[in-house]
Amino acid sequence: MNRKSVFETEHPYGSAVGKLIGEFSRLPGIGKKSAERLAQHVVSCHPEEAKDLANAISEVKSTIHPCPKCFFLTDQENCSICSNPSRKQNVLCIVEQSKDVVALEAASIYDGVYHVLGGKISPLDGVGPEDLTLNALIRRIRNDGIEEVVMATNPTLEGDGTALFISNLLEAESVKITRLARGIASGSVLEFANREMLADALRGRQEF
Amino acid sequence: MNRKSVFETEHPYGSAVGKLIGEFSRLPGIGKKSAERLAQHVVSCHPEEAKDLANAISEVKSTIHPCPKCFFLTDQENCSICSNPSRKQNVLCIVEQSKDVVALEAASIYDGVYHVLGGKISPLDGVGPEDLTLNALIRRIRNDGIEEVVMATNPTLEGDGTALFISNLLEAESVKITRLARGIASGSVLEFANREMLADALRGRQEF
Repeated sequence: MNRKSVFETEHPYGSAVGKLIGEFSRLPGIGKKSAERLAQHVVSCHPEEAKDLANAISEVKSTIHPCPKCFFLTDQENCSICSNPSRKQNVLCIVEQSKDVVALEAASIYDGVYHVLGGKISPLDGVGPEDLTLNALIRRIRNDGIEEVVMATNPTLEGDGTALFISNLLEAESVKITRLARGIASGSVLEFANREMLADALRGRQEF
Repeated sequence: MNRKSVFETEHPYGSAVGKLIGEFSRLPGIGKKSAERLAQHVVSCHPEEAKDLANAISEVKSTIHPCPKCFFLTDQENCSICSNPSRKQNVLCIVEQSKDVVALEAASIYDGVYHVLGGKISPLDGVGPEDLTLNALIRRIRNDGIEEVVMATNPTLEGDGTALFISNLLEAESVKITRLARGIASGSVLEFANREMLADALRGRQEF
């Protein structure tokens, strides 16, 4: 598929601006009008500002990688959470994606560490348990003295299924398994939960 | 002024993402939440897509420059309008900025050429006639056989003042001067006028 042809727009300033409008349109929540306004801003802004923006985009892609321990994204060798000595290293919160960690961290109500699965079990999308970071999870639980695992997958069909699968997987391990209380509304996604909902959910976590 | 410190945000992924959120926040109409969503998208999108976006931004800044004839922005030697043989070369529409040309072109109701002033006379902002492309305008009118000048400055105090100044300046030249009919609402800006308003304004243009 030549995906550029779909997004590229003709523009009186020339193809470079048309291309930029096309690229902006691909961003989430940016329609054609907004993309045009953003491109116009880039055209007329200080060259230094445009350079900063382009560099910031490139730098993110070149420096960000998953933490080798918990798979949360980081630009350091280990992520800021794993390498923070004041975090409880024996409480492990399991989430689907890095952005779920960002949501939980923004609420600043959790002081343990995380494990990012890299997705959820979803047969319809062809994602099975082997596509998640489950081997690394079991290794951590066995070797790192984890005492409690907090399931924080999204409260959706696939998220619940993934949590259930993992809790079965961990049955043989000597670890307490809890899950977030249903302060979070079923069917919604963790990424957009507010501080109160997340706090309720963490405080009221129950035996799995 | 260290403008970065104002915009930069701490982020669990590390400073590269914080910086990107800061850069996105500086774009018009992008608040902190939107900037975070855009940065999250860049973090998780295909590396090729991020590269395309960064390159498109850089390319716009490196290739776009004012047309030497009309000062409209272009990535060619001369702009797409000046070099279009089907445009009437003897009707000249005077606008404040390149984005006004984009608005008029989007309506596709004008088939002459343009002259971009590069601003408006605004003593409060320290912008005088000498800061606009007036010398080039007079040269064009004398040398290029211009028969009609259409004033299309914004219908604001400064825009009207600029149009009046130019019409006085051109009094000695043998050229018909018209201005856009007030189909456009006083106090608004040309950039956001819709096709109907612009069409009304062009059709009903009057002697200045």
